[in-house]
Amino acid sequence: MDKYVIGLDYGTDSVRAVIVNARTGETVATSVKYYPRWMEGKYCLPSANRYRQHPLDYIEVLETSVREALSLAPAGTAGNVVGIAFDTTGSTPVFIDETGTPLALLPGFEENPDAMFVLWKDHTAVAEAAEINKLCSTWDIDYTAYVGGIYSSEWFWAKALHILRNSSSVREKAHSIVEHCEWMPALLTGVKKSSDIVRSRCAQGHKAMWHPRWGGLPGEDFLVALDPLLAGFRDRLFEETHTADKPVGTLTPEWAERLGLGTGVVVAGGAFDCHMGAVGANITPNTFVRVIGTSTCDIMVAPYDEIGSSLIRGICGQVDGSVIPGMIGLEAGQSGFGDVYAWFRQVLEFPLRQLLPDGEQADVLSEKIIPALTAEAGKIPVGECTLIATDWMNGRRTPDANQLLKGAIAGITLGTSAPHIFKALVEATAFGSRAIVERFRSEGIRIDHVIGIGGIALKSPFVMQILSDVLDMPIEVCRTDQACALGAAMFAATAAGLYTKVEEAQRAMNSGFAKTYHPRKEMARAYDKEYRRYLELGRYCEGSI
Amino acid sequence: MDKYVIGLDYGTDSVRAVIVNARTGETVATSVKYYPRWMEGKYCLPSANRYRQHPLDYIEVLETSVREALSLAPAGTAGNVVGIAFDTTGSTPVFIDETGTPLALLPGFEENPDAMFVLWKDHTAVAEAAEINKLCSTWDIDYTAYVGGIYSSEWFWAKALHILRNSSSVREKAHSIVEHCEWMPALLTGVKKSSDIVRSRCAQGHKAMWHPRWGGLPGEDFLVALDPLLAGFRDRLFEETHTADKPVGTLTPEWAERLGLGTGVVVAGGAFDCHMGAVGANITPNTFVRVIGTSTCDIMVAPYDEIGSSLIRGICGQVDGSVIPGMIGLEAGQSGFGDVYAWFRQVLEFPLRQLLPDGEQADVLSEKIIPALTAEAGKIPVGECTLIATDWMNGRRTPDANQLLKGAIAGITLGTSAPHIFKALVEATAFGSRAIVERFRSEGIRIDHVIGIGGIALKSPFVMQILSDVLDMPIEVCRTDQACALGAAMFAATAAGLYTKVEEAQRAMNSGFAKTYHPRKEMARAYDKEYRRYLELGRYCEGSI
Repeated sequence: MDKYVIGLDYGTDSVRAVIVNARTGETVATSVKYYPRWMEGKYCLPSANRYRQHPLDYIEVLETSVREALSLAPAGTAGNVVGIAFDTTGSTPVFIDETGTPLALLPGFEENPDAMFVLWKDHTAVAEAAEINKLCSTWDIDYTAYVGGIYSSEWFWAKALHILRNSSSVREKAHSIVEHCEWMPALLTGVKKSSDIVRSRCAQGHKAMWHPRWGGLPGEDFLVALDPLLAGFRDRLFEETHTADKPVGTLTPEWAERLGLGTGVVVAGGAFDCHMGAVGANITPNTFVRVIGTSTCDIMVAPYDEIGSSLIRGICGQVDGSVIPGMIGLEAGQSGFGDVYAWFRQVLEFPLRQLLPDGEQADVLSEKIIPALTAEAGKIPVGECTLIATDWMNGRRTPDANQLLKGAIAGITLGTSAPHIFKALVEATAFGSRAIVERFRSEGIRIDHVIGIGGIALKSPFVMQILSDVLDMPIEVCRTDQACALGAAMFAATAAGLYTKVEEAQRAMNSGFAKTYHPRKEMARAYDKEYRRYLELGRYCEGSI
Repeated sequence: MDKYVIGLDYGTDSVRAVIVNARTGETVATSVKYYPRWMEGKYCLPSANRYRQHPLDYIEVLETSVREALSLAPAGTAGNVVGIAFDTTGSTPVFIDETGTPLALLPGFEENPDAMFVLWKDHTAVAEAAEINKLCSTWDIDYTAYVGGIYSSEWFWAKALHILRNSSSVREKAHSIVEHCEWMPALLTGVKKSSDIVRSRCAQGHKAMWHPRWGGLPGEDFLVALDPLLAGFRDRLFEETHTADKPVGTLTPEWAERLGLGTGVVVAGGAFDCHMGAVGANITPNTFVRVIGTSTCDIMVAPYDEIGSSLIRGICGQVDGSVIPGMIGLEAGQSGFGDVYAWFRQVLEFPLRQLLPDGEQADVLSEKIIPALTAEAGKIPVGECTLIATDWMNGRRTPDANQLLKGAIAGITLGTSAPHIFKALVEATAFGSRAIVERFRSEGIRIDHVIGIGGIALKSPFVMQILSDVLDMPIEVCRTDQACALGAAMFAATAAGLYTKVEEAQRAMNSGFAKTYHPRKEMARAYDKEYRRYLELGRYCEGSI
């Protein structure tokens, strides 16, 4: 009998549960469930960039999605499920008590946003991040060395400190802190003590400045110097972290019952979505895997003998085993990609929103703007457009993070049309991608080809072809549209002992590629010159802040 | 009995005839007539930037506009008209035969565009302008010294040479060349020999490199070196030029009859529209007069003792008597002003044009875009907008002409809206204005205040207030919306002997001001800083071509 594994991918709005044949990689059932409280807008304050998620949201969709997927799978599948694994967004931490329970599940905390998971995109901790960076710059150990040199308000310590300062009730009850991707396995395996929670190498290495070079988390002296409110947390947190291919335990009888699975099901370690997504997309050394959506998350892996003890400058993370155990996981990304196009759509919507009497008609037409721009931009002859743009409308994540940077469009004439601008923006996002590739290469990391996953990779041949031309490399687009959940399934299969390592699971279970974009040599040559103009405009933008 | 004068303002599409009380300046009747052949699109090829106008268009609208204006004026006005004067666009030259007749009025040339007036905005002579600039740069006399250092494809010699090269029939028949503003007075006063045409100081000084320093027009050796086709024209053209306050003659009996006026009516010299417009707007020394429309034409006058023999760097013209006789007329301008806003409207029209099924609805809505942008931009709080833009979407005319320059918009974030961009473009055009003011000042020309005429000056308080803030000077907007025609009327009155000089006519006949914009001191301070950012972005743009 074939064995099955379940991959659970917790995204920003919903969870995807996939049941995968562990021998062939075939997805036999999928279920998507939206977080009920989140979809009502509860506990969030977008005007203050506060985004919180209730642990009950995560629990409820776990049960409904797994049960629905099982009901859609062939009869008998449930009895042959041997493993389950989770990927989640991150850094998405929550305060827990001594038992490892998120505070929002305790009486009196049910409606307190500060007792809930602080979603990756919550930006309430901007001031705390600035303090961390200031302190790091004066400390004898550079704790940001492996997270790109700049600590973000989206990350673990900034968020934890912000909540400790702002909520006395959480402060009194808080014993420790856990990431979403660590809590899910702990929950299902019945962890009863916070110190028993298995910690994620991926999450802690990329977001909490955990590194063996300085003995794990930043020192107690550093944390107390940051704020005495942090005193004691380091000892109560953890020393060791683990890669996600290792089993954390097996399902408790209660959870086996709730999910309709057996108690022998192995639960794997957790990791972030893009990292497991890269595995699901069949990442290998020298392959640049890009999750391309509103922004990009770019992942590479480098064998120890290729990277040695090098520090890769200006990328946003470098963690042993965060992607594939036994290799260094490297993370980069563009803070705006599809969001840059969405920005221009929002500008062009102005006449529709202001002048059409019918809001519904405006909604309908607005959805057609980017397809219409794409169609017209595709007709622009090579060399007709004099525009050059930068892609920093949402700042720059890599290379060399700088959130103060802004976008620019130059070379405008009276003949410049909306499709010209759209094309220039597409080119700008591709040039931003090239800047990341160039950085990896100049730091000694070879890149041979590119794999794309995510909404834009699957849906926009116009963008992907330009990206291939600009990078002058083929880009393969995965057949699966659930690469993250498929990656989680690969970790589940490995943790369950069906494979000795993740790479074996990849070889057996990968989805293959739906399409390959090849660079057009003439265009690649033309874009090579245009890239110099992008860098020149970039220097202006960097000098002007 | 009061005396009356007629001012005729020949614009790009139409003529405006105004009948003005020469004592009070009151306009007693106005008529606007569009050029009939031009409005049918005849003789033009917009895709090749070819714009030609038939002399019959000018003749027909002269008769219909003057007769209509007289019919609208109080009874008895016609008998008390004592003077008439013309302003026209320019450089708008035409080839003539020995009798001074434009070739298109001769048999066999009636439908030949090369035998017609070459309208100011005709750009067919780009190659010839480049040749002139190349030759000037190697010649021992810098003939471009008083026209800004760069000869334009819109000007006299470039256009003449282009037509000589491209039309053998015109080449064979051509005896001389005349500007539109010179031909109208010659026509009405019955000139029968091309050498008898009174030449305009304004037209020839600003567009044909006529200057006393080198004895008038450029030397025969220079013209022949440019192209032997030009051999002989210099001798057949003219030596002297004249200011427009001097009478050219009186109406011929035929023209008196055709216009319904007496034969004693004095015809004044001709000049360009903006120059007579500045007079109509009540220009005095130290006043910066701006005709603000799709582009700007900026005029100043400087007394001889203020300017001495100085050469004002980087403006587009400096001609003794081109505006007010007895002073140096200085011309500058921005090649894009309202056109910059129209460019952005055209970008925003994209969804309307592409997505609305009804083209007529799109037309109607398109007209509402700039008013809607203006309304929303007016609500943007100070300091909210991070944008900075240059105004060079149509190149830069002054300071320091450079047609290769292009526009740029920087400081874009995901929150940047269409009204933010519109406001930044308005500010950019104002910063472009400030750059001109700064240049005049650094060259020793004092500017105390600003007078605005033209469509935008009259119709957009939003733009005019920002312009006043950026220039940190009051801006007065003329009460008349026909400043050019009123200026022509002042010249007519002076030529007819009612005043001894143009300044006297100005004092008696000016329309006064409808409105004054005062700079808001806080805004002026804020914009003073922003202007540094404009210059910085400008340096990038200049460096990137």
